[in-house]
Amino acid sequence: MGENGDTEIIEHHVDEEMEKKRILRSHGSSFMESVTPSERDGHSSTQSSHRLLAYSDALISIIATVMILPVAHTKVQDNEELKESLQVLLTTKIAVYLMTFLIVTVAWAAHIRLFQVIERIDDCLALLNLACMMLITFLPYTFSLMATFPENILGILLFCACVMVLGFIQAVIVVYGFSRPFLLNDQIQVSENQVFYKHHILKVIMRVPIMCFFASIFSFIFFQMSYVILAIVIFLPYISQSLKWCRSKAIGQVEETPDSMLFYTYHPNEPLSKERVEAFSDGVFAIVATLLILDICEDNVPDPVMVQKQYGGSLVAALQNYGPEYLAYFGSFATVALLWFVHHSLFLHVTRTTRFMGLLNTFSLAFVGGLPLAYQLTHEFPRNSRNELEAIQISCVIIFFAGVFQLAIWVAALFSERETLHPYVRYGGREHAFMLAKLALYPCVALGTFFLTCILSKFSASIFHLMEITVPFAFLLLRLLVRGGLTLLRLIFCPDGPETRSALEEEEEEARMPFNTIIT
Amino acid sequence: MGENGDTEIIEHHVDEEMEKKRILRSHGSSFMESVTPSERDGHSSTQSSHRLLAYSDALISIIATVMILPVAHTKVQDNEELKESLQVLLTTKIAVYLMTFLIVTVAWAAHIRLFQVIERIDDCLALLNLACMMLITFLPYTFSLMATFPENILGILLFCACVMVLGFIQAVIVVYGFSRPFLLNDQIQVSENQVFYKHHILKVIMRVPIMCFFASIFSFIFFQMSYVILAIVIFLPYISQSLKWCRSKAIGQVEETPDSMLFYTYHPNEPLSKERVEAFSDGVFAIVATLLILDICEDNVPDPVMVQKQYGGSLVAALQNYGPEYLAYFGSFATVALLWFVHHSLFLHVTRTTRFMGLLNTFSLAFVGGLPLAYQLTHEFPRNSRNELEAIQISCVIIFFAGVFQLAIWVAALFSERETLHPYVRYGGREHAFMLAKLALYPCVALGTFFLTCILSKFSASIFHLMEITVPFAFLLLRLLVRGGLTLLRLIFCPDGPETRSALEEEEEEARMPFNTIIT
Repeated sequence: MGENGDTEIIEHHVDEEMEKKRILRSHGSSFMESVTPSERDGHSSTQSSHRLLAYSDALISIIATVMILPVAHTKVQDNEELKESLQVLLTTKIAVYLMTFLIVTVAWAAHIRLFQVIERIDDCLALLNLACMMLITFLPYTFSLMATFPENILGILLFCACVMVLGFIQAVIVVYGFSRPFLLNDQIQVSENQVFYKHHILKVIMRVPIMCFFASIFSFIFFQMSYVILAIVIFLPYISQSLKWCRSKAIGQVEETPDSMLFYTYHPNEPLSKERVEAFSDGVFAIVATLLILDICEDNVPDPVMVQKQYGGSLVAALQNYGPEYLAYFGSFATVALLWFVHHSLFLHVTRTTRFMGLLNTFSLAFVGGLPLAYQLTHEFPRNSRNELEAIQISCVIIFFAGVFQLAIWVAALFSERETLHPYVRYGGREHAFMLAKLALYPCVALGTFFLTCILSKFSASIFHLMEITVPFAFLLLRLLVRGGLTLLRLIFCPDGPETRSALEEEEEEARMPFNTIIT
Repeated sequence: MGENGDTEIIEHHVDEEMEKKRILRSHGSSFMESVTPSERDGHSSTQSSHRLLAYSDALISIIATVMILPVAHTKVQDNEELKESLQVLLTTKIAVYLMTFLIVTVAWAAHIRLFQVIERIDDCLALLNLACMMLITFLPYTFSLMATFPENILGILLFCACVMVLGFIQAVIVVYGFSRPFLLNDQIQVSENQVFYKHHILKVIMRVPIMCFFASIFSFIFFQMSYVILAIVIFLPYISQSLKWCRSKAIGQVEETPDSMLFYTYHPNEPLSKERVEAFSDGVFAIVATLLILDICEDNVPDPVMVQKQYGGSLVAALQNYGPEYLAYFGSFATVALLWFVHHSLFLHVTRTTRFMGLLNTFSLAFVGGLPLAYQLTHEFPRNSRNELEAIQISCVIIFFAGVFQLAIWVAALFSERETLHPYVRYGGREHAFMLAKLALYPCVALGTFFLTCILSKFSASIFHLMEITVPFAFLLLRLLVRGGLTLLRLIFCPDGPETRSALEEEEEEARMPFNTIIT
């Protein structure tokens, strides 16, 4: 096991996919033979749904992060206090951003489950799915309306109408899928109670649209009630789960479904598709990393006439004004890219994503989305002003939470490490300490910078820029640092050990650590 | 073959991947055993590069389409003629957009080749790749500077500096990869002339940076020359190929490399990674589809004070002003989504993408990127004005070219159909007519709308909206239409055939068509 450790990570991925495909193939072909030709005549050619899902993930991730743009483009006036203008931001735009992010991820999770049941698509399903996507991309706008006109029911009505049409199209997709069973998940295909599955899935899909229907009716009578119902929609999965748990405690286990994995159960330990969690996260990271260059390309090209007049034709002098913007761009790009890198390393070792890990991932991504805004704020104020200090501290807080939620994914994974983690990174494994160090680096650095700027408020900008520059190098040298740290720890706590061992022996010992812990 | 036709498309994909993985596994494991432990000690854990490449594709596709935003946000004044303002647009912003798109896709193609050689990554390579991405995302800004200040050399210098640093980092990646051979492509791993490969790849990678170095020197002496060199950089692959062809014609085949697939040869028939072409296209389609909602969410939420004053508090009345914007959004989303759908159907049947098909795909995507702009123009002018007519015609032209280049991919694939297409869609195959109809629908509709608006210029807007609404339904009914059309054709050209056959028999005959064409 220690010998071919390096290929193992790759091989593991390969194994998983081949396993999946072998199942698909053995089930699939035997099923295709059992279908009579007349059944297969009417439909268009069946396709693998892989690329449709990748495209949907890309669209949904863009929409989830879009609403940060109005927040970022709110001009904070220099003469008023940052806190005051922040309160305006906080009450409406940031709320809209977070609500959009949450509702879109709820829609996305439902989309995952739907296409876990329907595994193959044809042209008709592809077009229906595109119609769904169009409705989902319109949701952020209804939230903007709600936030700007909280007492006007038009926003609520629009939102409810979108969700109801969405529910209707998804119901059509389910009915269509079950009418052509070769499109379904292989387990459902061979299952005998297909009709039962169909009714259960339809019931779960229609739950949210029906609640929205009531919300739209309530909006005419008592519109505050509608907002309560909408809040319930977002947290429905978790409420439903806790209700189920309460019932099971009160009257015992009523009905244990034969195969709960195929149901929309909203159980925290239920697996989400790891591939799609990765694709969605990639989309968010990519959009967020490039948000600032979008603005820079549009706004930071000086006007030729202005350059001629104010700077005597010297473009370099004119561009020096934009220096802080470039710095903000490179800073936010580097931070987002490195957070992606940590995320990538983490999910490389994750074998299965649970719903709870998905939720933590969503929170982490929501903070990542706020990063460009924070970096932009950092450079909008004059040096050593109170506003600048606060902007830097807000950036630190956002980085801290983005990192801490990533760490939380790791902790959540460790709690059920047998199902969710690769043996190498489980507690006491060879890569465990290194992975932990990667995940802890950003929260620690952000926390350190925050407190340093509190104490040395005069040098806050320099400290922040120093942090930006050193962190990428810290990642490059992290493996060395971790090895050094572990050696140091061992020297401190076991000073009677053989201190003269070479670094190579150290590492060999590290490799043997899992066995050591089993023995001791 | 006709019996299990529906699984075949899926199976085919599975086959391909399993093949790839079997090769990887058999080579990989045998190699890993042959490496001595000391060689494998120093490096961090090896990882599959799949997700890194997906993230890079997402970033690059966003950057490629970003420069359409300044074009879209240029306000066209209503009182002046559209043509005049279009000339301003055309000379600078559209040129910047197209140049950015082309140069970014050149960088992307080089990135594909680089990571076809280096198939596995470790932490260090991941970080180096992120640094590359940061530089690539900065390229559009240098183009903006060049376009706004064509006589100032700062833009050229910045661009050349970026490309040179990019080349340096890529050279470091190559040297790093070859110093740890387990990261390399399996064929190169087992090859004996690794050093030769390394030098060849380094030579090709350094070609562009060296040209940029000369361009930056020329910019001080005679800056027009620099632009010529930059233009050469974009078309270098094709120039290099034609030079090679001329040389081979003049002095005969000099050196035939043993394994040209592993080289950067820029041959038009050379395979590009199909997966990455799809990922890049998905990214472009996703960004383009959502570009308008970005604007709508930011700009089209009315100000509460304004609503109170102008509309007496009626939000519905205030929102009616934005009606055309919503229409533009849904129209452009639907068109982009359907073009994605056609692209998806096409690549489902493509088994291998050649470099020439990749080039056609780039052109098609460049036109797709212009769609939101065209749709926005359509609704900015008063009804029945000359400007509106021209905006609608421009939209038709853009849709036409986006569709025609997709059709060209298909034609190019047909020319080497044995290597590039699934047997089912080859000329005379069962799906051939249907695929052709899908690809031809948008160009035909756009052309038809264009000429109709020329004749009935008074009803141009109605015609255009009718087109928007009918096209999605046309896609849904296309299979029926094609079948009907084929029957009609057969009735016209072979009127002596058995005309009373049922539709089912017709289809069976269709399935047998490839054999018929072989016989006749």
